[in-house]
This record gives sequence, C-alpha cells and structure tokens, in this order.
Amino acid sequence: MFKTIEWKKNRVIFIDQSQLPWEENLIETDDFRIIANAISTLGLRGAPLIGVGAAYGVALGAQEALNKLPSQYYPFLEIVDQTLRSTRPTAVNLFWALDRMKEIWKDAEIQGMLPIDCTERLIQEAIKINEEDIQINQSIAKQGSFLIKDQDAILTHCNAGALACSAWGTALGVIYWAALQEGKKLTVYADETRPLLQGARLTAFELMKNHIPITLITDNMAGYLMALRRVDKVIVGADRIATSGDIANKIGTYPLAVLATYHHIPFYVVAPLSTVDIHIADGDNIPIEERSPEEVFHFGGIRIAPQGIEAWNPAFDITPHRLISAIITEKGILYPPFSEKLTYLKQNK
Amino acid sequence: MFKTIEWKKNRVIFIDQSQLPWEENLIETDDFRIIANAISTLGLRGAPLIGVGAAYGVALGAQEALNKLPSQYYPFLEIVDQTLRSTRPTAVNLFWALDRMKEIWKDAEIQGMLPIDCTERLIQEAIKINEEDIQINQSIAKQGSFLIKDQDAILTHCNAGALACSAWGTALGVIYWAALQEGKKLTVYADETRPLLQGARLTAFELMKNHIPITLITDNMAGYLMALRRVDKVIVGADRIATSGDIANKIGTYPLAVLATYHHIPFYVVAPLSTVDIHIADGDNIPIEERSPEEVFHFGGIRIAPQGIEAWNPAFDITPHRLISAIITEKGILYPPFSEKLTYLKQNK
Repeated sequence: MFKTIEWKKNRVIFIDQSQLPWEENLIETDDFRIIANAISTLGLRGAPLIGVGAAYGVALGAQEALNKLPSQYYPFLEIVDQTLRSTRPTAVNLFWALDRMKEIWKDAEIQGMLPIDCTERLIQEAIKINEEDIQINQSIAKQGSFLIKDQDAILTHCNAGALACSAWGTALGVIYWAALQEGKKLTVYADETRPLLQGARLTAFELMKNHIPITLITDNMAGYLMALRRVDKVIVGADRIATSGDIANKIGTYPLAVLATYHHIPFYVVAPLSTVDIHIADGDNIPIEERSPEEVFHFGGIRIAPQGIEAWNPAFDITPHRLISAIITEKGILYPPFSEKLTYLKQNK
Repeated sequence: MFKTIEWKKNRVIFIDQSQLPWEENLIETDDFRIIANAISTLGLRGAPLIGVGAAYGVALGAQEALNKLPSQYYPFLEIVDQTLRSTRPTAVNLFWALDRMKEIWKDAEIQGMLPIDCTERLIQEAIKINEEDIQINQSIAKQGSFLIKDQDAILTHCNAGALACSAWGTALGVIYWAALQEGKKLTVYADETRPLLQGARLTAFELMKNHIPITLITDNMAGYLMALRRVDKVIVGADRIATSGDIANKIGTYPLAVLATYHHIPFYVVAPLSTVDIHIADGDNIPIEERSPEEVFHFGGIRIAPQGIEAWNPAFDITPHRLISAIITEKGILYPPFSEKLTYLKQNK
C-alpha cells in the first residue's frame, strides 16, 4: 500500500503533494524546518496527514536538539513546537498532534528525563500517531468494503485518499481494500473537482499508483454518467459531520448526493469518528469557508475569465443526512437515522 | 447591442473568439480566406454564426471576383464556395447558408447576369441571412423576457449568447432583453462550463461587455447555490430538440435540470425552431459526440492530470422533457406537453 509519509532510519520520508501530478518528489529529511515548510506550502496536506507530519517534525527537532548543550534541549523543543504550530493556523489536527507531543516532552522536562530518553519517547509517540491513523483508515477501509460488490462502478469526488492521510485514506481506502485486498474488479470515476482539481491531480495520481484503473471526468459530467446507468455507488469523504448526519465536504458533493438520490444510486460518506462534531446539531450550523475568487478565475497561472467580473468560491457545501445512504466509520457502517448512533459512538469512543 | 459580425463598407467586421477573453481582436476583412480560416479555427463559432459568416464569405469572394476577367467570375465563385464548405465538415448551418448563396449565383449564371449585379445580390442575401438571424434571436429574446421578473437571479450554462449568433443570442438574449430593453435588475450566475470553459471565457465576456453584472462559478457550485435559494431561474440553450421536447445541450445541462427540479426552480430552454428535429422522436435517438480525452486532461493549455489514466468526454448530455418547465422559441413560449406544439410549429413554419 502506497504510504504518504514514513519514519525510516531517523528520517522522515514524504511525497511533496504541491508538485503532484507534474513531479513526484519523495522528500527525505532530518530537518523539522522542511516539514514545517511543507505543511505551509501544501506539500503535506489533508487534516490527518498534517497531524502526523507535525508529530514527526517534533521528533526530528528532538533529534537535532541532542547536538545542543543539555540545558538547551527543552528550550529548543519549544522553538520546534512554535515553528510547526505557526504553519496552518486553522488546522485542528495540527494542534491536536502538537499538544499530544508537547504533553510528553513537558512531562519529561518536569521529571528531569535525559534528552536521549525523551527523544526516543517522542519518536515512538510520532510513530504511534502515524500508526493509529493507518489503523483507523484501515479499519474504515475494511468496514466499507462490505458495501462494494465485484464489478461495481464507483464515482468519487475530490481527494479522500491516502494523500490526505498516512495511508489508505477514507473514501479511496474503501476502494483500495475492495480492489487490492479482496480482488474485486472495480471501475472508478473521479470528478476533477474544480477549482483546485484535487480529483484530477491527486485522486487520479494515487489510484494510478495503486494500479486501479481510473477514468477522469469534469464535475459536470457526473449527472449524465448516472443517467446512462454507469455508476453503481457514489463514495465521498467528509470534512465535518453534524450530529444529525448532515455533512460538510468539498464543494460539489451536495449536487452528487441529489443526483445519486434522483437515480436511486447509494451515496456513501466515509470518515473517521474524529470528523463528527457532536456540538453541532445540523449542517446549517457548520460555517462554510469562502475562498478567494482568484481560484475560480485562474488555473496554473493562466487567467481563464475576463477582468471586471465577480466569482463565488465556497470551499465546501452541506449535504443533508436524508440524501446519505450510510456513513462508514472505523466503528462500523451507520445507516439512517444517524443522530443517536453518532452520539453514542462519540461518547463511547 | 453587441454585434458579433457585421457588413460595413464592403468589408466584414467580426470578433475573433479564439482569443477571447485574453484578447479582444476585431477583425475587418475583404478576404473570404480570412473568414474561412476563422471558421476553421473557431474564431467564428456557434451554429447560427457559422452560417452568417459563410454567407458573408461568399459576398466577399464575389467582390474579389469582379477584379477578374468576366469569364473567370463564376468559376472563382465555385472556388470560394468550396473553400468555405471545407472548413467545418459537420456544421449544418454552414451548408444551409452556402446552399442558399449558391442558389443565387447559380441562377444568375444561368440567366447570364452581369458579375456586378450578381455580386450586389449576393451581398444583399448575406445581409438578409444576418438580419434574419438577428430577427429570430430578437423575437426569442422578447418572448422569453415575459418569464423574467425584476430582481430575478438567473443561472446559465455554456454560451448560448450573442457570440454564438449574429447578435442577442438565445438564453443570453432573454437576459439582455429583460435587462437592457426592459430595465429589469438581474443577478446572473454563469457556470464556467468545463472542459472548454465557454462560460468563463465567452458568457462572462459578453455579459460584461453589455454591462450586465456576472458572477462566475465552477460547475460543481450550482447545486449549493440553489440550496441557498440564490437562483430563481435556470436558462440554457439547446443544440438539438427532439419531438418529445427532450433536448441535447452542452454537457452539464442535465444535472442542472435535475437540481432545478429538486429545488422547485423553473428550468427554461431557449432555442430557435431550427433546432427542433421532428425526425427524432426523443433524446435517446440523438447521437452524442464524444470528444478527445485531452480536453479533460488539460485546463487552459496546462496538463492537470497524471499520464496513464483515462477520461470520458461527452460534449453534450440529454435533458428529458419532464425536467423542462418551458421551451422558448421565436414563435412563443411552449409549456409541456411539448410534442404536439413542436410538431405543429415546425410544419407551419
């Protein structure tokens, strides 16, 4: 299985996603600054992956700190933490992972632990965060593959794949498990996913890497593809799930759900339970980020629209729970109604 | 009103659409070869406009033929006709217009008409073809604007505008009439329309030129825009209409119709009766052109997907009549059921 990030011989190896699919650069580094820069510049992207990357960044920083005077070790970790923390100010997983690492080195400092021992503990914790993410994704993938039949044609949107996680991914994880572990023959269609083209750039790339045949379509072709009965299932990820089961996901997810319902095609959402926010009752309460119109006006540095017009650029849309056939989590497949099940699983996690 | 093509002082003036919106080149020429080349290279595009352009090409060729020996006049017209005829082998309006022009010069030849008189007749006929197209579009625009209310928010797809015709356009013609002639305040959203971006490049351009505020969206944003109740009407053109009222139009039209129906938003199709093909019973019988995957792999000249994958690229999709609220023609607004009305209007044209 394709791995997005890995710890190997005291170094971190990761794929630079900012250059995909044009260049496939594997970066191998022992410098936490390289990790911080990659998170800033979207070389490492996707909520779970940002968390794993930041944890490895702390581990690299701790190794570097061993070359300093013992009295400089913990102050240097403080710098490492601050550097990583300032990369993506809105990424929840970043802070979660850095807090988890910080708890370890703060404890070690209080206990007067030797730098060499603290470093070892930090490396182990980062590897653990990475492995947990893989475990969750693998569990999701296994659960979800129960819903996939041999010969299914699956449509997906954006990139809910290995590239957004440590490995496997969510929506694509289900596809990988069904195809690679269970040998089901699948046809996969990927929406290109304007404006940032994660489907064309990232999903197409990683499916191809895993030898799963992929057919790319523009976002506006999905409806006709369904009308021609060429789609058996729609599988997408989620950025946030409300208690009701309403989801926020990449713009263009909602029309797929409407079209799937209209054509009696199952619409599956695949996400870890960490995505569920039980403090949010329903989709209307999920804030939607509106991004710069420039993303709509441009691609690859080329302006595609005349000057003097406006554009609307919401990054996400809300898909109401009544359009969702099932939500696939690491704790199982949830069917509607979702509300009680989601609350129970979150409270008994 | 913005004119796409015009006859002025024995020359043809047209806008080179292949460079839009990056460069706005008005080409003024007395050379039929320039016209032929523009049709070949999509500088002149859109079925009605290709017909008008070709007719003007014959008129320019006839003017040039006056410089030849009288015995060379009609043979030269034969060359002009063949040159124009070979530009777009599948464009129905091209042959229709060239046949209409040829009937005139063939008649003139038989009657032994003087070259100077035949040339004058050809110029007049080309101008008439141009004016008829404007009349039909204007009539459609007027009829359609009955459906538009002050303060309406309208979503359109692709370019069914003045740039596809001599002036006004079909779907955009309705918007122009309502806004410019009747002073209705409108909000217009345009889908960018992947893969060839006619919405971003052409619709945005011509609406802006006509001082109608336009907000560009990517195709996958239309659903969420409707969910937020920010669309009052969807208005699109049609490339071909079957007797049942099923239509073929630019890929991405069908999902808009499904979404509009789901959100109880009227979905209007605007097209001249020449688009209706009463030899085709319903949408299943309309052949759909599948174009090169390269159009999906590229965006504004830049490759956006990895090598080694496939793409599907249908140029059109079929919208069944049951999703269409009305079809607006130059002979009036047709409400469902469409079949008898379309047949009657075609037979009594």
